[in-house]
Amino acid sequence: MLQPVYVLGGGQTKFGELWDFSLADLIRSAVDGAIAATKILPTDIDAVVIGNMLGGETAEQAHLGTFCSSLLPHHPPALRVEAACASGGIAIHTACALLESNRAETVLVIGAEKLTDVAGELVTSALMHAADAEKDGPSGLTFPGIFALTATAYMHKYNLSRDDLSLVSALSHKAAVKNPYAQFRKEIPAASISRSPLVADPLRLLDCSPITDGAAALILSTKHESGVRLAASQIGTEALSLTDRASITSFTSTKTAFANALSEAGWKRNDIDAIELHDCFSIASLIHLEDMGFAPEGEAIQLYKQGDTDIDGACPINTSGGLKACGHPIGATGVKQVLDCFKQLTKQAPNQVQNAKRVLAHNLGGVGATCTIHLLESI
Amino acid sequence: MLQPVYVLGGGQTKFGELWDFSLADLIRSAVDGAIAATKILPTDIDAVVIGNMLGGETAEQAHLGTFCSSLLPHHPPALRVEAACASGGIAIHTACALLESNRAETVLVIGAEKLTDVAGELVTSALMHAADAEKDGPSGLTFPGIFALTATAYMHKYNLSRDDLSLVSALSHKAAVKNPYAQFRKEIPAASISRSPLVADPLRLLDCSPITDGAAALILSTKHESGVRLAASQIGTEALSLTDRASITSFTSTKTAFANALSEAGWKRNDIDAIELHDCFSIASLIHLEDMGFAPEGEAIQLYKQGDTDIDGACPINTSGGLKACGHPIGATGVKQVLDCFKQLTKQAPNQVQNAKRVLAHNLGGVGATCTIHLLESI
Repeated sequence: MLQPVYVLGGGQTKFGELWDFSLADLIRSAVDGAIAATKILPTDIDAVVIGNMLGGETAEQAHLGTFCSSLLPHHPPALRVEAACASGGIAIHTACALLESNRAETVLVIGAEKLTDVAGELVTSALMHAADAEKDGPSGLTFPGIFALTATAYMHKYNLSRDDLSLVSALSHKAAVKNPYAQFRKEIPAASISRSPLVADPLRLLDCSPITDGAAALILSTKHESGVRLAASQIGTEALSLTDRASITSFTSTKTAFANALSEAGWKRNDIDAIELHDCFSIASLIHLEDMGFAPEGEAIQLYKQGDTDIDGACPINTSGGLKACGHPIGATGVKQVLDCFKQLTKQAPNQVQNAKRVLAHNLGGVGATCTIHLLESI
Repeated sequence: MLQPVYVLGGGQTKFGELWDFSLADLIRSAVDGAIAATKILPTDIDAVVIGNMLGGETAEQAHLGTFCSSLLPHHPPALRVEAACASGGIAIHTACALLESNRAETVLVIGAEKLTDVAGELVTSALMHAADAEKDGPSGLTFPGIFALTATAYMHKYNLSRDDLSLVSALSHKAAVKNPYAQFRKEIPAASISRSPLVADPLRLLDCSPITDGAAALILSTKHESGVRLAASQIGTEALSLTDRASITSFTSTKTAFANALSEAGWKRNDIDAIELHDCFSIASLIHLEDMGFAPEGEAIQLYKQGDTDIDGACPINTSGGLKACGHPIGATGVKQVLDCFKQLTKQAPNQVQNAKRVLAHNLGGVGATCTIHLLESI
């Protein structure tokens, strides 16, 4: 980073099917929470960035940057960014660029999505806009279908069993019991996950992150210091369409973003004490851990089986409950992940990792076409 | 600017009702044109930013940053930004931040929109997502209706006549005759504009910029130099909803962005040799010129009547043909404006202003809720 970017704090709404709240309500609540948590004045904020994918399609609201700026008395410069499910991570990256370029000293970063005011079919169709409209769209695939292709290929290639795959979602559900902001706060044993209704073979309902409303907000600053700083902010991309990939059991975007993030921070992989991982579908978690080198190809499931991913394991994963159990309000997820990393470093996490000093947020867009990696450290 | 940002060049598609081209086709064409115009290698590009408002609603394609990155062999980091009709200007601003922060040395900036593949009513509804969904949406207003409110207020307050208002669109149509990229290349006398069909009283068809497909692309660099640099890039915002404004005949966003841009560049207003102005509706041009102080309140029409806005006048406006005659493919407009400024400074403009050294691009989002100002100078 050209200069240190501090995380001052943040806030979030509960994630869930929030019938009583509009997109505007969710944003207001998260922004109020972030400002209250950090004790800065609203007028200290000199730029606003919001990550949102489907405001137009599901809430009749585009132009969300200026909507958010309108919540502040002095109307600072603002913009909306979008990269499908990585919109939140992209928002943080954009905020870093504004800060590092001296165009702002304190930035309000928001992620928000309101999905449950329209029919589920419309959400499913709109989410497919994250894939290539000309190459993938006409196939009739949905996102569960796309990730089912990766799961089928992965399970065949590496001989992964259905019951082993269920360990991934079980871990997130167990963690979320203690997280008051999570959509589902119930421990679900792996056996129940294996028996849940089939969505897109081999993926079952409890392999899939849900449709969720929610918002999260963070305040980043180069002017005001805190005990937590961003050590790296990186974007990786690869071909938007699965049809243009050499492999569908690995995402180059994660490999690129992670390698560049380690380089930017000057960290080694083993320096990382906890990970918020983009478990949009159970199979995705295994792919991500292998792409980042935490396990050899085809062997990430061993981390789950051996307890390495547990709260007291060598590599704790999704101590918040992840996308699977916290819910996945598309644009909000990447911001909420970094907020959870901040909580982990400031001893406010619902499941506290002992002596966590360096943590990672991994946010994915589409079927791995975009990845953002944020590394945070306590100082 | 933290360091000099050079405009290496750019390309654009023809603007119009381009039935034979998809959003993807338009983007590819503009990107190819920009790379060819600048002679850089595609692999010299280390970040991509696209401004687009309605890819999801009108072309079933979100995640456009990574779509654009997928066009390049090395898949650089990418993102989409949106701020309604100012999406293009916001894209350039974001590219500047990436460059000034040293996160990139050469950035491909794209603006694109494909509107004519869906019914006009759907486009009109989707464009209303640029207004406040809770405060403005339920009124049933469309954007021509919103600007008709400003026109009614302005004409009453300043005693502006219908025939005088028609001079604004007539100027843009006259200029576009020589612009091969313009949607409408026909001179239209003011008297015909005053008699065109009523859209939203007092605005008539020829007061309104059209529904347009198109894309434009620019390459900006801190590493590679050229004869044109950006002297300033600024965003101004104000309350998203008209109901929260002190005035509807002036846009604070323009005032803020313009004042900050002059300050950033170290220019005075009179240094500016030509302006690409966001004439989404005829009335808007008068408001913008007054907000930037080129005329006192209520008197901008005198600039048109006296010929000051002509190609050889004191303050040439929209020598490209503006939004009115070039067309207004939402996200593309702000990028195309800066491309036209670049052409003006490199003697490639369809209507060349003698000795133009310093030019301005003014891009607006919503009913003035967002404004971007870019200042370019030849060096």
